[in-house]
Amino acid sequence: MAEFKIMEIKKSVFEANDQNASRIRESLRDSRTFLLNIMSSPGSGKTTILERSIPALKDEFKIGVMEADIDSDVDARRITQTGARVIQLHTGGMCHLDAGMTKQGLDGLGTQNLDLVILENVGNLICPAEFDTGAHKSAMILSVPEGDDKPLKYPLMFSRVDVLLINKIDVLPYFDFNMKACAERVRGLNPRIAVIAVSAKTGEGIDLWVDWIRGEIKNM
Amino acid sequence: MAEFKIMEIKKSVFEANDQNASRIRESLRDSRTFLLNIMSSPGSGKTTILERSIPALKDEFKIGVMEADIDSDVDARRITQTGARVIQLHTGGMCHLDAGMTKQGLDGLGTQNLDLVILENVGNLICPAEFDTGAHKSAMILSVPEGDDKPLKYPLMFSRVDVLLINKIDVLPYFDFNMKACAERVRGLNPRIAVIAVSAKTGEGIDLWVDWIRGEIKNM
Repeated sequence: MAEFKIMEIKKSVFEANDQNASRIRESLRDSRTFLLNIMSSPGSGKTTILERSIPALKDEFKIGVMEADIDSDVDARRITQTGARVIQLHTGGMCHLDAGMTKQGLDGLGTQNLDLVILENVGNLICPAEFDTGAHKSAMILSVPEGDDKPLKYPLMFSRVDVLLINKIDVLPYFDFNMKACAERVRGLNPRIAVIAVSAKTGEGIDLWVDWIRGEIKNM
Repeated sequence: MAEFKIMEIKKSVFEANDQNASRIRESLRDSRTFLLNIMSSPGSGKTTILERSIPALKDEFKIGVMEADIDSDVDARRITQTGARVIQLHTGGMCHLDAGMTKQGLDGLGTQNLDLVILENVGNLICPAEFDTGAHKSAMILSVPEGDDKPLKYPLMFSRVDVLLINKIDVLPYFDFNMKACAERVRGLNPRIAVIAVSAKTGEGIDLWVDWIRGEIKNM
């Protein structure tokens, strides 16, 4: 198993988050590194989806992963098994990453020769939606057990992301989740969003998600 | 169906959150109103648990509920059906309630003659753990689909609450959730915590949770 680093990151002292974010985006584009920011509630399956996705992409792309958490390194340990270059970022209690914190993580990871860097943001539907991290695209995961009413309650998050994965569709029979009503609520907030139904457990739909990533990297 | 209010609340301008919280707690104790703060991730079942609990308590206690959300009034509409006095609090994007915001909510709700006020906090495992709201006791809900590793990743929340409900135990057969390992992790952070396994869907364990509330109100 490859080693991974753990890094304590601090909130940027600069107010100009949007400027910092634009600078990160341009600099990464110049070096042909695509940055994807993945957000969700705790336990919706971010890490399991990465465990499924990285093996499908790693022959085409050199991949790095930044695992952001308040505490622990359980996610970084899991992702290291995929062979990706991994860094665990500890946010010191902060509920999100801003552009400056993302830059610290990118510098700690080392993006040289990487085609794709995935930021697994802190598990939270509120704060991460408010900060541009400098990512080229953002994804959100909503899992079936969380309920189809979440777009009504966390509208900013759903309106800001480029793609929504609806995960854990293998347990649809056991939950009262209306896929059509959910997708309509999401499109009401964000008409251009891509919606992909997946099960990280069974692998269903992961090919569509991996195709989406592949297309976005090529169109960067 | 009874009417409910919707109220926009603002962050307190005062830094002295702990002082404000103590003042709320004492004032409510003087008037024999017990304040219970319930926290969890989005979609772990806070509202459904209240829909189960309030009918079991409403013949003994006069109950009020404060529903805190970024947006929407779906939870307040649901809880109104139980016959409790309900107010929907909109946090203006804030990821938590502090004591000052809680006070605004209590004033808006009107606590006269209420024996029990339940604050359903914003769905978030991070920010709400950092602020004393003035509640006499705090509860947290973790649902089975979120995973048994959550105490490792959000230790502050688990260490601050008086009781943990492990919800959605009806779907245990479909998830890889180790109840014993989870309880051990939680007790490692918080040796005095009560842990109650429930299913808001089937009603299993709700009697134990209702007994816990009953006991805490009597011991206030």
